[in-house]
Amino acid sequence: MRMYELIEKKKRGESLSHEEIHDMVMGFVEGEIPDYQMAAMLMAICFRGMTEEETFELTMEMEHSGDTMDLSAISGCKVDKHSTGGVGDKTTLIVAPLVAACGGKVAKMSGRGLGHTGGTIDKLESIPGFQTALTREEFFHAVETCGLSVIGQSGNLVPADKKIYALRDVTATVDCIPLIASSIMSKKLAAGSDAILLDVKTGSGAFMKSPKEAAILAELMVHIGTRAGRKMEAVISNMNIPLGNAVGNALEVKEAIEVLKGRGPKDLTEVCLALASRMLILCGCADEKESMQVVKNALKSGAALEKLKEMIRIQGGDPLVVEDPERLPSAAFRYTVRSKEKGYLTEMNAEGIGMASMILGAGRQCKTDVLDYGAGILLYKKCGDYVVPGDPLAEFFYSDESRKNPAEKRLLDSLSFDDMKPKGEPLIYSIIKNPLS
Amino acid sequence: MRMYELIEKKKRGESLSHEEIHDMVMGFVEGEIPDYQMAAMLMAICFRGMTEEETFELTMEMEHSGDTMDLSAISGCKVDKHSTGGVGDKTTLIVAPLVAACGGKVAKMSGRGLGHTGGTIDKLESIPGFQTALTREEFFHAVETCGLSVIGQSGNLVPADKKIYALRDVTATVDCIPLIASSIMSKKLAAGSDAILLDVKTGSGAFMKSPKEAAILAELMVHIGTRAGRKMEAVISNMNIPLGNAVGNALEVKEAIEVLKGRGPKDLTEVCLALASRMLILCGCADEKESMQVVKNALKSGAALEKLKEMIRIQGGDPLVVEDPERLPSAAFRYTVRSKEKGYLTEMNAEGIGMASMILGAGRQCKTDVLDYGAGILLYKKCGDYVVPGDPLAEFFYSDESRKNPAEKRLLDSLSFDDMKPKGEPLIYSIIKNPLS
Repeated sequence: MRMYELIEKKKRGESLSHEEIHDMVMGFVEGEIPDYQMAAMLMAICFRGMTEEETFELTMEMEHSGDTMDLSAISGCKVDKHSTGGVGDKTTLIVAPLVAACGGKVAKMSGRGLGHTGGTIDKLESIPGFQTALTREEFFHAVETCGLSVIGQSGNLVPADKKIYALRDVTATVDCIPLIASSIMSKKLAAGSDAILLDVKTGSGAFMKSPKEAAILAELMVHIGTRAGRKMEAVISNMNIPLGNAVGNALEVKEAIEVLKGRGPKDLTEVCLALASRMLILCGCADEKESMQVVKNALKSGAALEKLKEMIRIQGGDPLVVEDPERLPSAAFRYTVRSKEKGYLTEMNAEGIGMASMILGAGRQCKTDVLDYGAGILLYKKCGDYVVPGDPLAEFFYSDESRKNPAEKRLLDSLSFDDMKPKGEPLIYSIIKNPLS
Repeated sequence: MRMYELIEKKKRGESLSHEEIHDMVMGFVEGEIPDYQMAAMLMAICFRGMTEEETFELTMEMEHSGDTMDLSAISGCKVDKHSTGGVGDKTTLIVAPLVAACGGKVAKMSGRGLGHTGGTIDKLESIPGFQTALTREEFFHAVETCGLSVIGQSGNLVPADKKIYALRDVTATVDCIPLIASSIMSKKLAAGSDAILLDVKTGSGAFMKSPKEAAILAELMVHIGTRAGRKMEAVISNMNIPLGNAVGNALEVKEAIEVLKGRGPKDLTEVCLALASRMLILCGCADEKESMQVVKNALKSGAALEKLKEMIRIQGGDPLVVEDPERLPSAAFRYTVRSKEKGYLTEMNAEGIGMASMILGAGRQCKTDVLDYGAGILLYKKCGDYVVPGDPLAEFFYSDESRKNPAEKRLLDSLSFDDMKPKGEPLIYSIIKNPLS
């Protein structure tokens, strides 16, 4: 009866109180509130929205619905990064070693990929032997000695988000800013870092289709985190086209190693330097003036590459992949996708490219799918490049012949060509800072 | 996956096609579409609405989700009436015998009451021996010989409405015009009458709080029924105050008998004559000019009272209640509620009075509650009457002492007094006719 009244209240456009949000979240987690009532509530929230106050309370209730990580036993300021998800987004593999090489502590929990987006945990698990399920002691020890560790999300962290997200996923209630903000922030807060940099993606491959929308989400999350006592900042970055050239697990690890060797793609390198620099400022390891130079030095000196190698070794992986990336899994077949068109490449739909990579075996259509770590796509052309028929556009890596043709169709459908050279787009649109800092 | 896309489509404000509505209704009835997806869809419909086309298709799909009644074996034009529910609405008990006495055929299925509204089936079952579960043959025979029969809704009529309504009831998605219209009309069309008069109530005791809202609902239902090949008309009637003076099952049967004897309350008599007159016109038994006189004659001559008596006898009830209403069940206790105020009675909240009657035992708080047929309220004063402290306002009938005080509080809270005599309100606001007739 009570949940009925809460649904009616939200349907009328009224705000829910702290106590009402508490009852709703706990009632749902404990199974007293059935899925159908929560589904009606979520849809009402999609239409009526939530105030910043409500979104903060929802985030707090979700954060405390299960266990939370206490990282205070690790010395120094722990800094985390969250990306809202994208295609070819291997930034964590580069940024975390960069930050650790400059004295920051990165104690990070990451997720797996689903659909067209990849997940950092899947990418790391493509390294032979790499363990993403460490005990609390192993995790803390890794961060204390090496400065970084990336593990999978533990069992009972934010059960409210798991249950609510599963319902949103099947009731068309995913694209709702207060629900996205509370889902991301409850997990980030529960993960325990003192400082959090949000990388909010915008464009065809992201939830937020415009920089303006992305900024609204970013600002809301920065406010929530600040109110919860964390140092917060957000970067609005471009996800109209995939970041770097590699899409697929082992392919992305290889590309991350290339970036840390100073010879990776320019766009990816630039974004990673910016993210690492902001993280160092956030955790107090560098100031605005020097931070970028500090990060560039860590790249140039090979210190960041050394950190990646150290993390791989500590987490049980084969550290030799850093010197010899051919030790990473590879797919049975390769195929060069060639252009049928003539002109400038003007659009690369990131979601479509992610789907093509998923079809090749690099991603999951449903949670139980097994990944082909070697599968994926290497893009040979990016927006602004000029092509003629027959020019190689991309290389496919796959182990199942039947996947090639549907993936090629999907990839070609994602590309647009024109006689006019397209205008360049910024990689980073803006930085959203804590209003109080 | 498909239902997900339909929810998204409706959420964006687009119309669902005939085929999509078919898949949705059948998928839900057959259990392939889970409650949580339907709940999200219903909430999206509350915000986005449905076009008349969509509402028509939804009604058709719901009507044909189970059995439908084929009344063609009964000679003549069968005419039905539907009231959107109210407090003290015993019109069926009066109108059906009036129509039958004038040559119309009334083959009616009615429902039970829930919450503050009563149900015709409960009222009829307060007559000792009265059977509301007839076989198809018994029902047809009763209508053919006597001109009227009122039975309960059969098992598999419109299962889609049963399932959707149960979900709307717990997800705050009841008050939505296309959902109300499709729910009512699917049941009325499945019940098989050739002509249908809708009595759409408006005011404090009804779903539709204003005559304007009621007219929108009425017009939509008239259009749907006309398109489905039925003769349709709707009356917008006042439910700001209860109809007549009696609220409660046996008390309402007594009052209906009084009306058919020509000595019932003026408001109730007037509304019943109007409804019966419109029904006779709809089924072709009388024309606009003569219809009201024909109905008045049937009342005056006692022919309508005789029809009620005949129906009671055919359906196994004690026909002597018509001559001697004291044979109806009566409650153990009586109590006179007296005024503490001085002034004109200006408002009688019908919903509140219905709740008071429910508390006394005349209604159900939940579906499994057992009714006290003798319980209820007789109103001694109606809007516009002048009272001084100590004047009797109403008489309570009940069998459980503990119910008196909360019911008295609820009744008194429903009444307002003022020095100024209130303006009279019309009993019937308007008649909505089929635009093509």
